[in-house]
Amino acid sequence: MRRILITVQYLGANFNGVQAQKDESKITVQGVLEDAIQKVLQTKPTIYFSGRLDGGVSALALPAHFDINSEIELDKLQFATNNYLPDYIQVTSIKEVPLTFHARYDAKEKTYRYTMYVSRWVEPFLHRDAMQLYKEPSVELMKEGAKFLVGKHDFSAFMSKNSSIKGTVRTIKFLNIEQKGNVITVEVCGDGFLYNMVRIIVGTLLNVGYSKYEPQMVKSILEGKVRKNAGKMVEAKGLCLIDVKY
Amino acid sequence: MRRILITVQYLGANFNGVQAQKDESKITVQGVLEDAIQKVLQTKPTIYFSGRLDGGVSALALPAHFDINSEIELDKLQFATNNYLPDYIQVTSIKEVPLTFHARYDAKEKTYRYTMYVSRWVEPFLHRDAMQLYKEPSVELMKEGAKFLVGKHDFSAFMSKNSSIKGTVRTIKFLNIEQKGNVITVEVCGDGFLYNMVRIIVGTLLNVGYSKYEPQMVKSILEGKVRKNAGKMVEAKGLCLIDVKY
Repeated sequence: MRRILITVQYLGANFNGVQAQKDESKITVQGVLEDAIQKVLQTKPTIYFSGRLDGGVSALALPAHFDINSEIELDKLQFATNNYLPDYIQVTSIKEVPLTFHARYDAKEKTYRYTMYVSRWVEPFLHRDAMQLYKEPSVELMKEGAKFLVGKHDFSAFMSKNSSIKGTVRTIKFLNIEQKGNVITVEVCGDGFLYNMVRIIVGTLLNVGYSKYEPQMVKSILEGKVRKNAGKMVEAKGLCLIDVKY
Repeated sequence: MRRILITVQYLGANFNGVQAQKDESKITVQGVLEDAIQKVLQTKPTIYFSGRLDGGVSALALPAHFDINSEIELDKLQFATNNYLPDYIQVTSIKEVPLTFHARYDAKEKTYRYTMYVSRWVEPFLHRDAMQLYKEPSVELMKEGAKFLVGKHDFSAFMSKNSSIKGTVRTIKFLNIEQKGNVITVEVCGDGFLYNMVRIIVGTLLNVGYSKYEPQMVKSILEGKVRKNAGKMVEAKGLCLIDVKY
């Protein structure tokens, strides 16, 4: 048996999330990938991803592992799998890893990017992967608020319900906010993220950017550990998993 | 009567080109825009574009004019029109111009961008707007070949048939080729372009980049004025009209 680590790039608009669902009419990254690999190897692997991503969320590089009994060259496996995949999802790298490796449990660090653009009109190119903002927030204020989130904290206030996770303490290594023209990006790197955590952080920082919250309020939201004190969860479309480190 | 100048941004994949066609099942930029404006003004304008673009070609900023008899505020006309347009086509600017202005005849300078990316695999994000190249061409050789095209020339060799144009002399003001990572862009600015000229230029320069042609051959192709000596026309998807100056 060989354990294979791949990275997958895909456009979120085409999927109802990563994880296979009971309702087989739901198109998932796992379902589409397992089907494509089955066409190559004549046997269906079970794919383990570095984590779950909701419907609408994209990935520049989502790692996943699966086991095969075939002696197939990996370059050929990648090429053939990609041939069976549509243009909006492709395997961008492949390698063999030890049988002890696990795409989910061994992940040390994940980086997400959330993209927004400021415009009174939809901008067709940007609108595919970014959330439209009608008014320009203050990126300076957002940066001030963001400082309170960096470090090791209990992020309960920034987690959606229906999450069966045990611990709610995570470490954010950096949280960078940048503006280029009318495009604002939030890049956040951490040792892990709670359910919807990045999208709730962005919604909260937007409240700061629009002066609904004082920047210092981010600290009290964090300390209060109550979800309803934080901002709204922003839409899935602007979110993209850009890197996972092992 | 008021003459209105708009710029339109749209994703080419959704359209069978700019110009309305007799076959009404063909979705065109003109058709979709005229319908949307009709919904706002209750009367259908005839829209004149700065030029035609083929199906699959995108525009960051395509100018167009039309006449209205309404006293509507332009900001409101833009807003209401955009509301009737899908997300993949929007009016990004609007202003009133003199009745003597013509979006096509008064255009002084157009700039197109052609985007390619080098990868053995489809890259889902890039693939939407760029042509995939399996092998990396030499951008240095492409630049050498491109030098011969800058300036005032008869571009007959770089024009598709079925063009009823009279003159074939055009002036290319600049032709810049850049590589960033695995993305190669060709930006070309001129006082006008013959039918499919940009796509044939890119196809020809790729032959130079792959050492099928010596760079100097671009000069002899130009001077020979025979279409079949030039390279293949590359696909529409990578092409985008980025600017028109009046």
